[in-house]
Amino acid sequence: MRIRPERLIADLRELATIGKFETGVDRPAFSRDDMRARTWLRDKLGAAGLSARIDDAGNVYGQMTKAARAVLVGSHTDTVPKGGWLDGALGVIYGLEMARCFAENGLVNGMGLDVISFQDEEGTYLSLYGSRTFCDEDVTSEVAVARGQDGTTLDDAINGAGIRGNAPCRLDRQRHLAYFEAHIEQGPRLETTGTKIGVVTAIVGIRSYRIAFHGQADHAGTTPMAMRRDAGAAALAFGAALAEKFRSLGSPESVWNVGSVTFRPGAANVVPDEAQLVFQFRDSSLDILDRLEQAAHATAGECASAYSATFDLTRIFEKQPTAMASRLVGLIEQAAAASATPALAMPSGAGHDAMTLAKYIPSAMLFVPSIGGRSHHVSEDTAESDIILGAQVMLDAIALFARSPDRA
Amino acid sequence: MRIRPERLIADLRELATIGKFETGVDRPAFSRDDMRARTWLRDKLGAAGLSARIDDAGNVYGQMTKAARAVLVGSHTDTVPKGGWLDGALGVIYGLEMARCFAENGLVNGMGLDVISFQDEEGTYLSLYGSRTFCDEDVTSEVAVARGQDGTTLDDAINGAGIRGNAPCRLDRQRHLAYFEAHIEQGPRLETTGTKIGVVTAIVGIRSYRIAFHGQADHAGTTPMAMRRDAGAAALAFGAALAEKFRSLGSPESVWNVGSVTFRPGAANVVPDEAQLVFQFRDSSLDILDRLEQAAHATAGECASAYSATFDLTRIFEKQPTAMASRLVGLIEQAAAASATPALAMPSGAGHDAMTLAKYIPSAMLFVPSIGGRSHHVSEDTAESDIILGAQVMLDAIALFARSPDRA
Repeated sequence: MRIRPERLIADLRELATIGKFETGVDRPAFSRDDMRARTWLRDKLGAAGLSARIDDAGNVYGQMTKAARAVLVGSHTDTVPKGGWLDGALGVIYGLEMARCFAENGLVNGMGLDVISFQDEEGTYLSLYGSRTFCDEDVTSEVAVARGQDGTTLDDAINGAGIRGNAPCRLDRQRHLAYFEAHIEQGPRLETTGTKIGVVTAIVGIRSYRIAFHGQADHAGTTPMAMRRDAGAAALAFGAALAEKFRSLGSPESVWNVGSVTFRPGAANVVPDEAQLVFQFRDSSLDILDRLEQAAHATAGECASAYSATFDLTRIFEKQPTAMASRLVGLIEQAAAASATPALAMPSGAGHDAMTLAKYIPSAMLFVPSIGGRSHHVSEDTAESDIILGAQVMLDAIALFARSPDRA
Repeated sequence: MRIRPERLIADLRELATIGKFETGVDRPAFSRDDMRARTWLRDKLGAAGLSARIDDAGNVYGQMTKAARAVLVGSHTDTVPKGGWLDGALGVIYGLEMARCFAENGLVNGMGLDVISFQDEEGTYLSLYGSRTFCDEDVTSEVAVARGQDGTTLDDAINGAGIRGNAPCRLDRQRHLAYFEAHIEQGPRLETTGTKIGVVTAIVGIRSYRIAFHGQADHAGTTPMAMRRDAGAAALAFGAALAEKFRSLGSPESVWNVGSVTFRPGAANVVPDEAQLVFQFRDSSLDILDRLEQAAHATAGECASAYSATFDLTRIFEKQPTAMASRLVGLIEQAAAASATPALAMPSGAGHDAMTLAKYIPSAMLFVPSIGGRSHHVSEDTAESDIILGAQVMLDAIALFARSPDRA
């Protein structure tokens, strides 16, 4: 089964005209252009022979009704404001093209291919809203407080999109045997290593923290160093030591960031009495995340003590790591090798709808290279040859899966 | 010659009623209360037998006209907003009390004692304005741009104070053989060491810098550590390394401070593309100041390079160190020893009018302890017994000087 490159590229280009902004697109979830794109997609899926509709969450779901079992393929067509033309759209149009291949070539081992574009993966109102409702998760309390940047509630956005009362689409674990999602990498690793296919082993866990060091504001000229309680010096020592500790304790794929630092009162000649840092780290392993958290606590204690300061360390955000199904990872690697293009096994540092699906059915993600590692920006792009190669490798992996879906 | 403690304390307390704010005073230069205090002082100096007036800069100068040569004693009566009751007022009222002692006991070796309260030491409009005009420094260009926080120009403040056209008072190097200034310490060293008298060896030099590290804003989840240009990590490493370097390269009396840190864009999940620190250091030795500056440059280069960042280091403020006259330092130590209270030789970490005077005539400063090291705050205070002891020791030192003013 071969995808048809010109059809794939033409659909991607056509979708990118909806909400076009400079060289990118502007289709925040539930915006007029987002809903236009979803209607367009529904019609395209219908034309490909699927039973397609938009559900009451805004998800576009196309079902290959003649099959009792199917692989689910998709991603999301909503974007960040002034985002790139590929991002999640890539994975959705892969699904559309593959559905056409199935329609033209017949089911594989009796198995069909369903396509989905989840709503609001980007969190315009509530991140992963579409995939979480699709998986029947209870989001009631989160929906109640979800608002866009202009203050609009998610409820109003749903009403405004005219989808209130549409029938819901739901994951069916008897039917949906696996989920495959393609996405641009959003980072530089594939490009830097000259690899064309990334296969995601896990979507990393994230822990974010705020740490505040407390000292005493003193005159920076008249107070000898030994008599200070310097919250700022403690914070600087902490930030520097954290990097050293994480380098030695983390995995080769651990990443971390000190994103923000604030000193108070903030004058050149006053010893800071408060210094705040916001930092985070990510890894696919819970053990590593725990180890880094312990190191942060211990380092904070050492640095506070060295400068007679105290500290509060608060975890402000946490997301558990999500492993992709190892059998599916292997199938993508096998398909890539068969196309004579080795795949790079890598974690995804960013979140995706596959995080939700992986809790319920075997899930896999394939990455294609981002030029310059760019994403969430109008300059985001991927070479057409890479887009085409990625689609073929994923289709081949899906076909391998369909031939023996029940193997462990 | 003995000062009269009850008279000294009564005058300090009376002056503190002018512009009283809570337990402190609020007498910014040229304010109504500042000028009321200056008029009060002029009259007190007149009552003590001095020829006293307010000059066209707002300086209050009392001259012991019967002497051809005199020691100049004083400080400033203006305060920071909502400041303490002692600060510079202490040194001025010491001068008033000593002038009365001279009036009652006669000149010492034919030498008199003149008293001064300089205007705007605190920089409400222009720091050290009064002492600099008194020493005939050209401040024209600085006056032209000097404004208070409410936007009032220094010229308007002078007009508003009703002193425009008053005769100037000037330093007379034939007459004024030495300058003695008492001040509260504004730091904790005397209290912490249980010392009652501080003798200032030098007013430290200050150098302040802004350093900006420049990197690249990247997704903190998808960009591997080795591919980042992390301005924030470079800044944290710099801040921590600076403390280490300064500790090993500075003198035991060097002090430094990183007062402010700013990361941009400042989000937890974005690698900072710009990180700014404002830092300063102080020491009495030009060599040490140069050595610390070189260390800052070298450290910045190392840290920028370690994180593939670049940097700009800009000196934003500089003040040269000012040595006090060593003979006068010795006389204060001798007088303190004679009062059975050892003096602690120490640098002044803050600036004073003596910085200006020391350029032209031998100058000395005596510190009394600040309770809790506090200053520039309504809670500023000094034990009455320490105020009294400080006045007597300084008077004794001045008498020692007057007996042999010309010795090297």
